[in-house]
Amino acid sequence: MIKAGIVGGTGYTGVELLRLLVAHPEVELAAITSRSNVGQPVAESFPNLRQLKQTFQAPDFSVLSQCDVVFFATPNGTAMQHAPALLDKGVRVIDLAADFRLKDESEWEKWYGIPHACPELLGQAVYGLPEINRAKIAGAQLIANPGCYPTAVSLGLLPLLKADLIQTGNIIADTKSGVSGAGRKPDTAYLICEASENLKAYAVTGHRHIPEIHQLLGPVVDSELNITFIPHLIPMIRGMLATLYVELKGQEADLQNLYQDFYKEEYFVEVLGEGEIPQTRSVRGANSCQIGIARPYSQAGKNNQFVILSTIDNLVKGAAGQAVQNMNIVFELSENCGLTTVGVVP
Amino acid sequence: MIKAGIVGGTGYTGVELLRLLVAHPEVELAAITSRSNVGQPVAESFPNLRQLKQTFQAPDFSVLSQCDVVFFATPNGTAMQHAPALLDKGVRVIDLAADFRLKDESEWEKWYGIPHACPELLGQAVYGLPEINRAKIAGAQLIANPGCYPTAVSLGLLPLLKADLIQTGNIIADTKSGVSGAGRKPDTAYLICEASENLKAYAVTGHRHIPEIHQLLGPVVDSELNITFIPHLIPMIRGMLATLYVELKGQEADLQNLYQDFYKEEYFVEVLGEGEIPQTRSVRGANSCQIGIARPYSQAGKNNQFVILSTIDNLVKGAAGQAVQNMNIVFELSENCGLTTVGVVP
Amino acid sequence: MIKAGIVGGTGYTGVELLRLLVAHPEVELAAITSRSNVGQPVAESFPNLRQLKQTFQAPDFSVLSQCDVVFFATPNGTAMQHAPALLDKGVRVIDLAADFRLKDESEWEKWYGIPHACPELLGQAVYGLPEINRAKIAGAQLIANPGCYPTAVSLGLLPLLKADLIQTGNIIADTKSGVSGAGRKPDTAYLICEASENLKAYAVTGHRHIPEIHQLLGPVVDSELNITFIPHLIPMIRGMLATLYVELKGQEADLQNLYQDFYKEEYFVEVLGEGEIPQTRSVRGANSCQIGIARPYSQAGKNNQFVILSTIDNLVKGAAGQAVQNMNIVFELSENCGLTTVGVVP
Amino acid sequence: MIKAGIVGGTGYTGVELLRLLVAHPEVELAAITSRSNVGQPVAESFPNLRQLKQTFQAPDFSVLSQCDVVFFATPNGTAMQHAPALLDKGVRVIDLAADFRLKDESEWEKWYGIPHACPELLGQAVYGLPEINRAKIAGAQLIANPGCYPTAVSLGLLPLLKADLIQTGNIIADTKSGVSGAGRKPDTAYLICEASENLKAYAVTGHRHIPEIHQLLGPVVDSELNITFIPHLIPMIRGMLATLYVELKGQEADLQNLYQDFYKEEYFVEVLGEGEIPQTRSVRGANSCQIGIARPYSQAGKNNQFVILSTIDNLVKGAAGQAVQNMNIVFELSENCGLTTVGVVP
Repeated sequence: MIKAGIVGGTGYTGVELLRLLVAHPEVELAAITSRSNVGQPVAESFPNLRQLKQTFQAPDFSVLSQCDVVFFATPNGTAMQHAPALLDKGVRVIDLAADFRLKDESEWEKWYGIPHACPELLGQAVYGLPEINRAKIAGAQLIANPGCYPTAVSLGLLPLLKADLIQTGNIIADTKSGVSGAGRKPDTAYLICEASENLKAYAVTGHRHIPEIHQLLGPVVDSELNITFIPHLIPMIRGMLATLYVELKGQEADLQNLYQDFYKEEYFVEVLGEGEIPQTRSVRGANSCQIGIARPYSQAGKNNQFVILSTIDNLVKGAAGQAVQNMNIVFELSENCGLTTVGVVP
Repeated sequence: MIKAGIVGGTGYTGVELLRLLVAHPEVELAAITSRSNVGQPVAESFPNLRQLKQTFQAPDFSVLSQCDVVFFATPNGTAMQHAPALLDKGVRVIDLAADFRLKDESEWEKWYGIPHACPELLGQAVYGLPEINRAKIAGAQLIANPGCYPTAVSLGLLPLLKADLIQTGNIIADTKSGVSGAGRKPDTAYLICEASENLKAYAVTGHRHIPEIHQLLGPVVDSELNITFIPHLIPMIRGMLATLYVELKGQEADLQNLYQDFYKEEYFVEVLGEGEIPQTRSVRGANSCQIGIARPYSQAGKNNQFVILSTIDNLVKGAAGQAVQNMNIVFELSENCGLTTVGVVP
Repeated sequence: MIKAGIVGGTGYTGVELLRLLVAHPEVELAAITSRSNVGQPVAESFPNLRQLKQTFQAPDFSVLSQCDVVFFATPNGTAMQHAPALLDKGVRVIDLAADFRLKDESEWEKWYGIPHACPELLGQAVYGLPEINRAKIAGAQLIANPGCYPTAVSLGLLPLLKADLIQTGNIIADTKSGVSGAGRKPDTAYLICEASENLKAYAVTGHRHIPEIHQLLGPVVDSELNITFIPHLIPMIRGMLATLYVELKGQEADLQNLYQDFYKEEYFVEVLGEGEIPQTRSVRGANSCQIGIARPYSQAGKNNQFVILSTIDNLVKGAAGQAVQNMNIVFELSENCGLTTVGVVP
Repeated sequence: MIKAGIVGGTGYTGVELLRLLVAHPEVELAAITSRSNVGQPVAESFPNLRQLKQTFQAPDFSVLSQCDVVFFATPNGTAMQHAPALLDKGVRVIDLAADFRLKDESEWEKWYGIPHACPELLGQAVYGLPEINRAKIAGAQLIANPGCYPTAVSLGLLPLLKADLIQTGNIIADTKSGVSGAGRKPDTAYLICEASENLKAYAVTGHRHIPEIHQLLGPVVDSELNITFIPHLIPMIRGMLATLYVELKGQEADLQNLYQDFYKEEYFVEVLGEGEIPQTRSVRGANSCQIGIARPYSQAGKNNQFVILSTIDNLVKGAAGQAVQNMNIVFELSENCGLTTVGVVP
């Protein structure tokens, strides 16, 4: 059994990790920490987890360093305080926040607004998107679990970029997320009375996931990559959709085959059939990315445009599920171990 | 492996059965039928179930009669047409609709408005609420899976009624259900534009679950039972809450202990701690009933009133999950086999 | 034109007051105050109010004392700090919070947990439910605008209590409210990810509106009044439903006629036709209370039970709309002046 | 008083028309028709409209021909059956459906799939977007009320296209609508259990509003216009957002000033301040279009991209409100007569 510790067990990604790990056949939850809830039974704060008999602990090094793997489900800036000491003890670290997602220290500090506590680890951290980095993840000590938007956008664009089929300077990513992506902080903007029956774009002048996406996908292509990225807040709890507008270099390509072939070995990426349109609820609670491909109508008769629709559950394939998938790879388990549950519909 | 057939795989209880059974380690889905979708891959209609490679079949006797168990997730009036022949072949039948829930033929016909096709089976059918009928379920050929409201109300009242602690003639059950309880029929009343951001009572002059509740709980008590039952439609998909108002015969009783003791061996009934209030989301997607007990404030100083709050997911413990629990009992599996997943929060 | 001041213009009742008063033909908004937003254009915080050219001011006495009427849409405990000085200047004060709703100082302090700043005004304040107190409101200097639950419950019970038709010691009020009733505070419990797709009871051991209801309705009856009151949080923004369970003293009464007759002159109380069931959306945004009457099915054949269903928009007839209605009465305008808009459906 | 008739008073645009017209000071509702509800009081079907004492009538010519104006809030294909006879009698006709929106008969028949009943009227009908066609509307007998998407998209793009500032061949319109845009038909896809907590694109290979947009905006520009248009279904009742991605021809332009100047005389189009992002709820129930302008971050340093965010309530400025605005123009009333109510927030 893998001894797992979770730092920050009361946020949405932490609670989701608990939901997945409590059912994982190869994991023992050795420590669940939360500064704010020390001493409280987990099942009291989260009655869905009544199977769990643990109480929240303080995040003590002595306990965490006994774990095989520690997940940080903490706000940005926390994991980088604790990761170095744990790594020194041989503990694998998987950070669900953004502390190790960017390679470039100054780029990181520009977007996150604080100095990085251990920039020397930025190079060594492996970006945990298994569908592109599986081999590196297998041997990783420190894994930067991807952001939700980068997961949806990258899985949606990867086949086209690898095949060098599209213009790379004018990609549009109009992205939509359920509100759980904003975390469990008591902010007026995310009250039900503000966020339900409402729709808006946000972070229109720059979202932190933009450099992350470019860092990952830039090296895949030869030409300059520019993805215009506008996120939207959708009045629902879970679910993410990236609507990706791309332009073919040539006039024709069989994208349906390209995608199905590209992902045919991937358990967690499902390319829908021709004409099928993905919907977020199909992956609710499941570690899946479902992708649909469409050719939009053009009044002017253009035929080189395509729309890729990529959906995930932002808390699962976009966060906790992907973290477990990464853990499975690191510990040489079957990649879908504990991750085979299907989406909750309706 | 148990060979299971599902008749009516496209309604909400049918799809939920598929979600649970696809993950059940001891079940093989031998047949999934749907008159309306014959020949269509299940995964195309329900992309959450992409692991399923079957197509919908017509509900043929030749196929269903080869199953060990057949679940009817059909509208009322369907199972009674097919059950006798299947039972003759030794197939176990679990009906998620209401065809076999009432013992009295004329009572059944009064509430359901059609003649019963096999009234001779009404007596033999076992009412599948395991927490009260476990022994009979174990040997049953034909199981009437309980309604969602009767499940929530009965589990909430049972300890008090068995202990003979309350007045039985003036119990109030103010019940609330998410809209999935109404099924997947294209009725204007259940459109998102009608049912969201809205709240109303319905069936105020009599709901079909009333006789079901009285039939189950009446024999438990010596005095006349009368439960005033008013259901409400809540603007959400899943979840049910029964708010039960009861009056003690005496002046004092330790209900908290009574309930915890009564349900201490039950895996699927969780009595919350003193002062804890259940919420439906804690059991979303899980086969659990969570119960809280409260003593309401009385301006006049009355101290013999209590409120029992009983929550379930109407599609799981209120339908498909309970059906699987019944199947587990019938086939002598561990009662929670395939049913240990926890509630999806948030 | 009536010069109106609003103290606390950024909470939900304050914003709703602004929505109503900006369209009121006889009101001039002389001052809109908010400590937190001083100097900011109202229309920037609330772009629905772009017709408003004012900026939020600090709540200065010099400005407020020039008004004809000042509405307090502030948290409990604020109005009582400022009301005495304004009343001295002859300004009418309408408090939408609870500061002046209870007559008894110690009862008030018991429920609100702080000392009252001006208990000498408790007796003089008029409880602003026009349908019961219209005459007193007309001459009032200080009006305690009723709570939302007391409005829905009292309008639902009044005809029966005045007619002395029901048992008064065992009334059940199972009440349900949209989340805007909790105000616009950044509390985790009211995040969309916690409060949508969820349902729960709250304040089960005593809600502050209980003494308010008993104070209002107690004097109406001769016998002891005891209303068991359990509120529930409904996953929607606006709307309130009180499901009221009552028992007739006698065996028969024509409640439909009783109610229609009782409210026949009331513009803002609508008794639905026989068999009609009210829904909250019909009054969304409107200053209406819609009431339906039902006789519940009794398995035991009891025929002396009735259910009264009373719906309001908690922010309108339950708060801001009722405040404007009170203002209209005080200033001898037509009672529905500025309040004739109908519910927003869908 | 203008005598107005409404054909099809039970759909969402019809009910919204009733909500607006019942409060319109210059309109008398002379006839409200609905084939399905003949003889039923309007207030019984729609209890929000209890002020209305009319019953639904059959859509008889004798009654409708006595009106000054008849609104068709019917499915596509209905208005064209009745408009010619009414126009012959001098009745003004405003069609809220699509029968008269396209000028070209074959284009119309291609998109709507049926023969047009009176193609000779297509040329004479005036497209009722007042902000671009006010003068023609003033004298019109027959008005084609615009679709909701064309309203949001066109108002969002008009200033840029008129100023000839952007590339016209590669505009992206990622559009999002609340579900009321789909109408009040009992379709499984729009059940709350399917459409809430869910998100998807639809009509990805071509939506009927595409030719309408190009017909309106094509003549405004010299070069070829091509707008890639992908609509999405948002889990809410009302509200529409068009996220418009455009590329400047040159490197710089002050779009903020351009838009504010362009719309400075328009009562119903509000350009938000620099940095403000529109949200749909601000216009809920109001006849407003709110527009925000943003310059998206470009990883590659491109500076010629802009995003225009255009929001409306699809049932008001996108349907019934715009129809009333058109009526006001035709009958030489103040354009905002009866249309000054503000958005319902929260």
